[in-house]
Formats: sequence, C-alpha cells, structure tokens
Amino acid sequence: MTEPSPDHVQSLGRGLAVIRSFDAEHPRRTLSEVAQATDLTRATARRFLLTLVELGYMRTDGARFWLTPRVLELGYSFLSSLSLPDLAGPHLEALAEKVRESTSVSILDGADIVYVARVPVSRIMTVSINIGTRFPAFATSMGRVLLADLDAAALSEYLASIELTSLTDATITTERQLRSELARVRADGFCLVDQELEEGLRSMAAPIRDQHGTAVAAVNISTHAARYPLREVHDRLIPALLETSAAIEHDLSRIRSNT
Amino acid sequence: MTEPSPDHVQSLGRGLAVIRSFDAEHPRRTLSEVAQATDLTRATARRFLLTLVELGYMRTDGARFWLTPRVLELGYSFLSSLSLPDLAGPHLEALAEKVRESTSVSILDGADIVYVARVPVSRIMTVSINIGTRFPAFATSMGRVLLADLDAAALSEYLASIELTSLTDATITTERQLRSELARVRADGFCLVDQELEEGLRSMAAPIRDQHGTAVAAVNISTHAARYPLREVHDRLIPALLETSAAIEHDLSRIRSNT
Repeated sequence: MTEPSPDHVQSLGRGLAVIRSFDAEHPRRTLSEVAQATDLTRATARRFLLTLVELGYMRTDGARFWLTPRVLELGYSFLSSLSLPDLAGPHLEALAEKVRESTSVSILDGADIVYVARVPVSRIMTVSINIGTRFPAFATSMGRVLLADLDAAALSEYLASIELTSLTDATITTERQLRSELARVRADGFCLVDQELEEGLRSMAAPIRDQHGTAVAAVNISTHAARYPLREVHDRLIPALLETSAAIEHDLSRIRSNT
Repeated sequence: MTEPSPDHVQSLGRGLAVIRSFDAEHPRRTLSEVAQATDLTRATARRFLLTLVELGYMRTDGARFWLTPRVLELGYSFLSSLSLPDLAGPHLEALAEKVRESTSVSILDGADIVYVARVPVSRIMTVSINIGTRFPAFATSMGRVLLADLDAAALSEYLASIELTSLTDATITTERQLRSELARVRADGFCLVDQELEEGLRSMAAPIRDQHGTAVAAVNISTHAARYPLREVHDRLIPALLETSAAIEHDLSRIRSNT
C-alpha cells in the first residue's frame, strides 16, 4: 500500500474531479449526482461544490450546480503559456482563406495529438473538433509528423505503449507499416493521411520546428478525400502548407530570440 | 474576522491559483517563482506543484514546471456542458463562409461577454480573440443584445456596477445613451456597433433565445468598418445573421425537447 497523500493534496485532485464530472450529458447536477459521479460522500462533495461556487467556478440555484465560464480561464493559462496558438492564428487564417479548407495546429501529449489552434472552414468530419480535442497520434497526419521526429528510443517506447486500433478500413495497424510510413514522412518533410482516421477525410501535415530543429507542433489542412485529385494536393495544398509552417517557425524564432 | 475555511477548501483554491500563475509571460516557472506569484510558502507551493504533476496537469524537469494540455480538459467540461458551442459550430461556419467574415457566439457573465464559439476568417482586430476571451458587455454588439434582454431591475443593477469607460472616440459613455441604444436593440431584434470597442471594427449581433424566449447567448459578424456600405450591411449581413440565429435556436429547441 502506498503512503496516503496529505489531505490538501487529495483535496486538489477531488476538486478537479468535481469540475470534470460536468459535461454535455450532465450540464447541471444535484449534490447526490456529483457525489455518485466522483465517488465522494455527500458531505465531502457538498464542501467542494460550495467552495467552487465561492471561488466563482460554479453556480447553484440551491438544488442543482453548473460550471461558469471562469473554468475556461484554467485552460487559458495553458494556451497562453504555449504562445504558439496566438502566434499561429493569423497564419492558419491566411492558409484557410487561401485553400478554403480547415487548418489546425496540434501538439503531441503522450500517445495523443491535442488541438491547440484551429480555423474551421466547413464541417467535414462527423466528430466535432475543438481546442483540446484528442486523437490517437498514429492515425493522424499531425501525429505522424510528430512521431517521425522522435528518437529511436522514444519511438519504440511509444509503439510498445499503444495498440494500433483500426479506425477505418484504411488504418495502418502493424508496427512494420507504421515505421515505414514514419520513415517516409521523415524523408518527405510532410505527411498525407488518407481516410485512416475517418472515412472520407484526407489530411496533410507539416512539422513546426523550434530553433534547435525539434518538431514542437504540427500544422495541417483537412479536406474531403474526393475533393481534389492527388496531383492538386501535391502541386497546390502541400506547398501552401509548407509555406505556412515556415512562416510560423519564423515568428516562433523571433519570439524566442526576444526572451 | 470570518471563520477560516477548513483546510481542504483552501487547498482547492490554492491549487487553482497555482495553475493560473502560468501564462504567456511565465510559461515555465521555478518553485520560488510560483511561491512568490501565489503568495504561498515554498513548502506549500511545492506540495501543490508535485500534486499537479502527479495528476498529469503539470510537468517538471526538476528545476522548472509547466502546464500540460490536460488543463484544457477542465475548460472543456464547461464548454461541453453548455452544448451551445457544438450546436452553433456548423451554423457559424456556414455563416462565415457565406459572408466571408468572422462569426462568434458569446454569453453574458457578470459585466462581460465571454466567447464560447468562434470561426475567424481574417484577423481584423489588433487583440486576438479566443474561446474564453472577455470584453466589457456594454461596448460590444453581442453584449448589448444580451443587456437589452435583461429585466429593468437586472439592467439597473448592471449599470450601477460598471463604469462606462471610453475605449475609442465612438464609445457610448453615458447611461442615458446606453439605455436608449438598448431600447432600440430591443425593438430592432439586432444590434450594430460601429468602432466603439476598437477603431475600424464594426460588429453586428442577434440574440439566441431558448424555448422560454430568454436570450441565452448572442451570435455576431465582425467586419472592417469601411468594407461595406451601410445599405449592404442591412440588406445582406443582418438578414444572414438573423437566419443563423434562427437556425441555432431551432437546433437548441430540438435538443431541449429530447432531454
């Protein structure tokens, strides 16, 4: 048995769990519902809920509780600490306007990519994508660009930790195939993924590198698979994407050299 | 002196303050810096930082600490509990594509509007707008649409609580002017604000009403002030905006009737 954490440590995790117990299916919950969802006693859940109300993160009408927009400011601390979303924003908007397709920036977090900036042009995916949305890195163009940049040890550790689950008929599901695809991405400097994450979706991504040459993020364009012949993808979309990643890298290097 | 809160309550607020001490100017901080920024002892700050590392909200290299994308999931709990951003998304995208201008949805929180969904088309404002960005309600088109819907008592309470600060030469700064403008918005069913929040920015907004007729959010289009003659704003942009708010209201009513 591990040594129990001091109370206050446990309290922070419990309070965050209370926040996370609210979602689309449960926008407003009673004390009992929160207690059940978080596995806390009613008395404990009540103290956390009232603390969150006091701190401005929650409101109540006496019977039910709901989150306030102040909760957004927590995620905001992360986004603004990145500086990348702000900096990439204008470049994503210019790219989206030029190619008339949705564009995004993601970073790698564990086995997932996480969207940190996005300019949607038309909803082509059945799942909705927001800042904070995660997808398994191996099945996405941005994820492969970032995986291709890992050193051999980190890549092997990643591959050992995940299951290559088939998401469509086209998803790569063997380590050999994925390694060979990543080698190609490394050589090409960009990645094209065709309907491996979702039927009908084609996505292309390029790395955003810092001053040391490390890929810290990836930028992508996503389109209907059938919209352009592959020749046009290579002649028009990929060059526009590479110009955008170069422009973001340029701005990133200016910021870094100022600090 | 008020009775001191029990430890665990205080701990939650302190832990959230530690998260909030990171931002664009301080993306990575040492233990001492966090202790200073949050007014905690080094020992206490250390316990919170290590708890956040343990919970996956923070990482450390031993010397400095930084937030992880997991922090985004907290804001996500709020956004998904709203259901409005997801539901409005496709309509905002269609509107942005039709009028080729940025579109947003905001809600009222205290004296501010808070952006909860946004489709940027071209960066026309000098300040960057993200989900969670706040502006004073009185100086924005979305804010005025929501203020116009308050009952007399709530509006008077709001007016007593704020200062009508001039943000540009055009900002309305007297209560009399603002009340008369809100009466007009109430009668028209939409609001047009010309360069009161920022020079060169014109924005128009319409309310999104729930099944009880209450304005729960507002949708807007923002453009360069000089881009369209006012006739075109009224003949083309406002009708497109009103169609969009009606479409969002329609989807909203279907969701509500399902639950």
